[in-house]
Amino acid sequence: MGDIVILRLGHRPERDARITTHVGLTARALGAKGMLLATEDKTEAESINRVVKAWGGDFFVRTGVSYRSTMKQWKDEGGFVVHLTMYGINLPDCIDAIRTEWRSSRDLMVVVGAEKVPGDVYQIADFNVAVGNQPHSEVAALALFLDRLQEGQTLRQEFKGGELKIVPSEHGKDVRKGQ
Amino acid sequence: MGDIVILRLGHRPERDARITTHVGLTARALGAKGMLLATEDKTEAESINRVVKAWGGDFFVRTGVSYRSTMKQWKDEGGFVVHLTMYGINLPDCIDAIRTEWRSSRDLMVVVGAEKVPGDVYQIADFNVAVGNQPHSEVAALALFLDRLQEGQTLRQEFKGGELKIVPSEHGKDVRKGQ
Repeated sequence: MGDIVILRLGHRPERDARITTHVGLTARALGAKGMLLATEDKTEAESINRVVKAWGGDFFVRTGVSYRSTMKQWKDEGGFVVHLTMYGINLPDCIDAIRTEWRSSRDLMVVVGAEKVPGDVYQIADFNVAVGNQPHSEVAALALFLDRLQEGQTLRQEFKGGELKIVPSEHGKDVRKGQ
Repeated sequence: MGDIVILRLGHRPERDARITTHVGLTARALGAKGMLLATEDKTEAESINRVVKAWGGDFFVRTGVSYRSTMKQWKDEGGFVVHLTMYGINLPDCIDAIRTEWRSSRDLMVVVGAEKVPGDVYQIADFNVAVGNQPHSEVAALALFLDRLQEGQTLRQEFKGGELKIVPSEHGKDVRKGQ
């Protein structure tokens, strides 16, 4: 399998900050290597880095990237690009083709927009994918996409080097310290 | 199958408003009947109602409910309650039991907290379910829970009576008016 990296576009700091944090944490929990942000908003990077320090793994966040050159360079280096958009091809109709590419060790960039995605993103992307053709949430769309891509093998991974760990509990909270 | 209704807790208007909108729209897109909000925040209800009007279906939002009496009444009337929390039993280890209850026509309430969920929620819930035992997002958790509950049969449903409809498109946007 290739690596998975998220490119988050069009984040408006006052409105989308928390959503961007949720996008990043969801990406990390479901097996992505890192997230590139097309803004300079360091606050979100810090929120996510705090989670990585406490809970482990080596998920990275980089801010201030140019979306166009980042997508083009990714493709030039042999990777492919999936753009999640409600206007695209419905996930059940394209996930097998995407999984085949990814399993052939091609690195996968998943582009997650806020509102008003520039038109060229639709052109540069190899796949424009709708997680259902209804308006809902880029966080939900990313979660469902990553889960179905990996055929459900996402919720049991271990994160090394964290300070905290949860022991699953039927009716309470059990959080342990140390690795 | 029983009906599915979401109970959203602990929403702090200044911080969680957009997240609550995403929770509601995700619930609608993935087959829930409606959402109950444990606050009086009418703004979120209005955002969701605008989507329902434009895109169809009859998803409802009700504000200002008491979480404790709502959960207890739901159970008294024969329904069961799943609380999504990172401290719970991991989804792959409990989803079959939950699906069996739901398929036996018991109505399902899904409780989605923000931070600081009151302790009695963990006690009243029949199942405390972690969508992976890592911190991520209540929007992602709800999406993955509903998708796996319904075994992926969620992304093709039609919503009746909407003003807008998307025709899936490989590299662009195609939105049609009318039913």
